[in-house]
Amino acid sequence: MATVRVNLGDRSYDIEIGSGILDSLGPLLKKAVPRATRALVIGDANTGPLYGDSAVSSLREAGIAASMVTVPAGEQSKSLQTAGQLYDDCLNAGLERSSAIVALGGGVVGDLAGFVAATYLRGLPYVQVPTTVQAQVDASVGGKVAVDLPGGKNLVGAFHQPRLVVADVATLSSLPRRQVSSGLAEVVKHGVIQDPPFFDFLEESAKRVLALDPSLLGQVIERNCRIKGFVVEADETESGLRAILNYGHTVGHAIEALRWESMLHGECVAIGMVAAARIALAAGVLTDAAFIPRLVALLDRLRLPVRLPVAPAELLPVMYRDKKVDAGRIRWVLPVRMGEVTVQPVDDSLVLEALQRWQAE
Amino acid sequence: MATVRVNLGDRSYDIEIGSGILDSLGPLLKKAVPRATRALVIGDANTGPLYGDSAVSSLREAGIAASMVTVPAGEQSKSLQTAGQLYDDCLNAGLERSSAIVALGGGVVGDLAGFVAATYLRGLPYVQVPTTVQAQVDASVGGKVAVDLPGGKNLVGAFHQPRLVVADVATLSSLPRRQVSSGLAEVVKHGVIQDPPFFDFLEESAKRVLALDPSLLGQVIERNCRIKGFVVEADETESGLRAILNYGHTVGHAIEALRWESMLHGECVAIGMVAAARIALAAGVLTDAAFIPRLVALLDRLRLPVRLPVAPAELLPVMYRDKKVDAGRIRWVLPVRMGEVTVQPVDDSLVLEALQRWQAE
Repeated sequence: MATVRVNLGDRSYDIEIGSGILDSLGPLLKKAVPRATRALVIGDANTGPLYGDSAVSSLREAGIAASMVTVPAGEQSKSLQTAGQLYDDCLNAGLERSSAIVALGGGVVGDLAGFVAATYLRGLPYVQVPTTVQAQVDASVGGKVAVDLPGGKNLVGAFHQPRLVVADVATLSSLPRRQVSSGLAEVVKHGVIQDPPFFDFLEESAKRVLALDPSLLGQVIERNCRIKGFVVEADETESGLRAILNYGHTVGHAIEALRWESMLHGECVAIGMVAAARIALAAGVLTDAAFIPRLVALLDRLRLPVRLPVAPAELLPVMYRDKKVDAGRIRWVLPVRMGEVTVQPVDDSLVLEALQRWQAE
Repeated sequence: MATVRVNLGDRSYDIEIGSGILDSLGPLLKKAVPRATRALVIGDANTGPLYGDSAVSSLREAGIAASMVTVPAGEQSKSLQTAGQLYDDCLNAGLERSSAIVALGGGVVGDLAGFVAATYLRGLPYVQVPTTVQAQVDASVGGKVAVDLPGGKNLVGAFHQPRLVVADVATLSSLPRRQVSSGLAEVVKHGVIQDPPFFDFLEESAKRVLALDPSLLGQVIERNCRIKGFVVEADETESGLRAILNYGHTVGHAIEALRWESMLHGECVAIGMVAAARIALAAGVLTDAAFIPRLVALLDRLRLPVRLPVAPAELLPVMYRDKKVDAGRIRWVLPVRMGEVTVQPVDDSLVLEALQRWQAE
């Protein structure tokens, strides 16, 4: 078992990474949240049947009064309405301020359960058991929790750091292949924004990573948690550096808002990363000619889409509803070269032209 | 204009207290939240028509794009559903992370608008313009924001400090007399838990305070903000000392839950303060024989109720749904003498007996 420490003062926590460590959830939670005598495990229709019993048993064996609830799988559960039902579940489970909420699932469950943990009784200890690639490498680090509004994704939320993350890589084997690819989009992103040698490694090992080769998997998760942890440590509440984690997410979120029934988050981010690179090129920010071909080739090998599925003119108004808008201007995260990005506004006309030219190719 | 500074590190803020200072909201906000170019004022059916135009005009004159929404007056607006509607209003008003949410009203509006400010886009600058005694002396200090669930009051919320509080004492003159009395319950509480000379002052000046005598009003508000500010500074997130602010609130909240259509918060707290004193006496904690007669006499002069309106046996299960329950035990805030309270568990049987004896008198 590897441990990645995220250092955030009195909100510091450990990410435990290993195969089969879900069975140690009880003792791990007991150690991280010593006062918790009660816990509510929140899963979804996928993770509940697969891992719910293991999680609850492990907690009970550690002397924690644990119960389990499940929400429907999918983004539509990330709503105020579902949060409202979960608050009632918290009440019925007799949760107190010292009790823990455990998120057992992917990004949707983590965001939703985390939002409930951030707000029920003004905040309860929160433990994440991420069961997807995306959640293990991304959502489980950083404390961003949220629900969606009809008007946009993640518009309501909080910064609420977990007390513990238990990333059991064995849970990834049950994922559909498309979900694995989607999660790897964030892995690629971490290489682009911060770690060129890791990007090289992904190029060399794309096939084995995609196949979730057990000899690589733990390392990949660990390295990603370290990269993201480093950025989050430097800027917990996204007032500066942390914005670079939004690389690919401006266009990505807009596509996701327009195509949420048919496309996964990572798929939208993959397209968004290429889009931002095209905009960076048009704006004269991207200086490395090999960058875009390398990025497109790697994403393609990881079975991620690299073409814009909607008209650029349709994207623009949706992008302005994003949280990343500041004083009426979109803060674009643009690659300069491998391992370096910059955050700056770009004229809408330049954005439109760059995206239209790309789509016409 | 008097200023009370609440010192909470990078979450410090000023409470401005004065008569007619609502007209300076724009420049005050501009100073406290320099990056805000946009603001949404949230009022209710009472405050909107009375003060909405002044607030919005002052903001606009200061160059802030301001708009106003109102919610129905009363506790039933402190719901997830109303919060959901306000999120849509935030979206429609084009609020960004640097925009301000202004709460214009009493405790309900402050708690609700504050919860929206704490969670929309994961947190926006929040400005309070309290227009009731209760809100000026209590709710505007400390950053507790919340909505209710069907199962209990304030069960969902956050700690979200305002950037600025503008307490215009002129707004109090429009309050119904019962609302004034209700607000004064928290004023009495502050004297009991922390400031015996202030309690003496209230005994001497009850009539003038109740009449909102302008020569006393600013001072009373200021002194209360200082007392509460001191407690909050020592314990921002209620892990220790801050619990003393819950004096009167254990029984108070339970009565409020059972009688919310007919009783005001401060009325319930007044009864709760007497109840806690009776329990303290029965538990041998209260050592000053004059305490209860003095407390009852002052509350009575301030036209606050001092008799239990429900059966003690009915209260007990409701009290266990409170946030103040820790490891299955209620943390009672009990007076020792004027100016000193203690926080401790008490056996249910002793609680029941003390309350039943009181009710039988």
